[in-house]
Amino acid sequence: MAFLKVVPLEKALNVVDSLPLKPEIESVPLSEALGRVLARDLVSPIDVPPFDRATVDGYAVRAEDTFMASETEPVRLRVVGEVNAGDEPSLELKPGESVYISTGAPLPGGADAVVQFEEVDRDGDEVVIYRPAYPDLNVMKAGADIPKGKLLLKRGTRLTFKDTSLLSAVGMAEVPVFRKPKVAVIGTGNEVILPGEELKPGKIYDIDGRAVTDAVRELGGEAVFIGIAKDERDSLRSMIERAVECCDMVILSGGASGGIRDLTASLIEELGEVMVHGIAIQPGKPTIIGLVKGKPVFGLPGYPTSCLTNFTLLVAPLLRRLLGREDEVRKVKKKLAHKVFSVKGRRQFLPVRIEGEKAVPILKGSGAVTSFVDADGFIEVPENVEILEAGETVEVTFFG
Amino acid sequence: MAFLKVVPLEKALNVVDSLPLKPEIESVPLSEALGRVLARDLVSPIDVPPFDRATVDGYAVRAEDTFMASETEPVRLRVVGEVNAGDEPSLELKPGESVYISTGAPLPGGADAVVQFEEVDRDGDEVVIYRPAYPDLNVMKAGADIPKGKLLLKRGTRLTFKDTSLLSAVGMAEVPVFRKPKVAVIGTGNEVILPGEELKPGKIYDIDGRAVTDAVRELGGEAVFIGIAKDERDSLRSMIERAVECCDMVILSGGASGGIRDLTASLIEELGEVMVHGIAIQPGKPTIIGLVKGKPVFGLPGYPTSCLTNFTLLVAPLLRRLLGREDEVRKVKKKLAHKVFSVKGRRQFLPVRIEGEKAVPILKGSGAVTSFVDADGFIEVPENVEILEAGETVEVTFFG
Repeated sequence: MAFLKVVPLEKALNVVDSLPLKPEIESVPLSEALGRVLARDLVSPIDVPPFDRATVDGYAVRAEDTFMASETEPVRLRVVGEVNAGDEPSLELKPGESVYISTGAPLPGGADAVVQFEEVDRDGDEVVIYRPAYPDLNVMKAGADIPKGKLLLKRGTRLTFKDTSLLSAVGMAEVPVFRKPKVAVIGTGNEVILPGEELKPGKIYDIDGRAVTDAVRELGGEAVFIGIAKDERDSLRSMIERAVECCDMVILSGGASGGIRDLTASLIEELGEVMVHGIAIQPGKPTIIGLVKGKPVFGLPGYPTSCLTNFTLLVAPLLRRLLGREDEVRKVKKKLAHKVFSVKGRRQFLPVRIEGEKAVPILKGSGAVTSFVDADGFIEVPENVEILEAGETVEVTFFG
Repeated sequence: MAFLKVVPLEKALNVVDSLPLKPEIESVPLSEALGRVLARDLVSPIDVPPFDRATVDGYAVRAEDTFMASETEPVRLRVVGEVNAGDEPSLELKPGESVYISTGAPLPGGADAVVQFEEVDRDGDEVVIYRPAYPDLNVMKAGADIPKGKLLLKRGTRLTFKDTSLLSAVGMAEVPVFRKPKVAVIGTGNEVILPGEELKPGKIYDIDGRAVTDAVRELGGEAVFIGIAKDERDSLRSMIERAVECCDMVILSGGASGGIRDLTASLIEELGEVMVHGIAIQPGKPTIIGLVKGKPVFGLPGYPTSCLTNFTLLVAPLLRRLLGREDEVRKVKKKLAHKVFSVKGRRQFLPVRIEGEKAVPILKGSGAVTSFVDADGFIEVPENVEILEAGETVEVTFFG
């Protein structure tokens, strides 16, 4: 039992790494693939275009038949047919023959060039050509755009409309993507109510429940908001049980009181196993990582900034791993806008707002919604540092 | 009738501006507001916190009762009750009294400070205080986080998880957002088939249908893919009729052939009105703008690069206007990587790829899928310019 034994952040991250969740792959129709993350490298199963294709309206010819053509001594070729876009080519050109062809149509057998409509004259069943055509003139060769076997997109690509267009071009009807992890979110606290409920004295509206739910969605996961548990054993217990039933993992955000934290830990211990109970960072002391019926359960601190900082440090990397997005950079280097003080021996994460090249510390205290909402992310003040000077380079980690 | 009268781009944009579509506002539950665009400025309807709130566990006191407290001569106050987070405060402190209070709980009447639990001793029904407390010590005053009436978010904000959290904090259950315009997409061409269909000789897989559908979705609109119309009057007519029935606007992307273009124009003329038939840009000559039953109908060129360039120039600004996102910057200045040639008297848009600070022109020809997929956007070569030199500053417009 890990009760009340505060561990270093690295230890907690190792525990997260060891959690029994692996990226899973599912197949979705291309029409629903936008925004999903590719689970495998994809190569083209076909040549694009699949056939030698006319790029203009005109006459398909054997180029060698036109080599002697000139303004003064044009070449005349017999027009033996017509092929339009979408037609299956059945003709075979013999020497001295040509075929009327429209843009996008497949070249008939024997033809290797297209003479543009505007550059010839039509005379009965003959076309009059005034300039030599070279092989492949006005032809896009089969596979010239995308050859069969070409690597199209790499595993981990979050599919944009250009990517889905490319997959459509090669005829891919189903796309292997990472399954969205399903995350249950439980808010806690006797004082917490949901928007739409009447604001009675002593109550406040939920922040963490909404924040965690929508942060999971922004990351690409599926979030299920279970509700707000009261600071009371049965209410919390039934919600945790419901959550592990429906989802791949559970996130609880603590109410303001310390009681709910102890209750959460003791319930996880009862239903499963507490793996981490407290992390030696500020904020993060109340953070819990447990396992119930094989499903990870995170208990995050209640103050919004604390909740989202720990979500960003512990849960988001796990979600990114499950979604195949672990390579995404969510950090940026900035200059600290003004001096900040910390306590020696305390590893601290401070919310900051980014203004141009500056990181501006937000010192409202983590109890304020606005200190979270106004912040873009946080910086770390290491254990052995008491002062960060204005102008120092700091690394900002974005929330989420 | 605007048949075959090629107009300047500005004229076409004026026509788009005059189309009978206006941004519409709808109300959605906060739980579904993530990613939507706010249609009105929102101010806070309440103070947050709604009451003076303890920020630590301890004892609520009248600060003046503690002014004389010292290590050697502590002050003793009678503990007359307890108030926890979520409790409705009913007590009223009289001089010499205190109340046990937990973090997040509302201060009882008369109290104006909280003395932290760790800094006092409890002795029976008395609390022993060794240091003076000043008014507001360990108290977050009502409205200190967010005062009632404060501007929270501006019209046009695309709601992130931080924004939805903020709206939750002030108890907003419903959010006014711009209604998603519903866009019908029709592909055309006898040669075009959909992924999943068998690739018979002469056929190619759809690109534009997928590209336009998913580009609309990325912009925040709702796209309905109607299907691929054959180059044939009845097929195209019934699809256009179905499209104007179900949607706010219709986008057709032309097949490779010129025939479908004429057919589209004549059908729009028959069913409604052709307002633009051809724009004096390259690519864009075949572009059509019409109106059928009061619904805008766009006919875009068939080549993917041409299709998406015209989508970006004409349709995307309209969608952004309807979605309240017209202020978004989708342009960036870069240096041209190498010289490009254009034709004098032709206003041209060239696809480019961005590599660091450079814009690299893509010269594969607009018939290639890859010239669109490899490009990030396009640059304009004005009518009177024949050469853009390497190193010149160019403005890249992103596709979409």
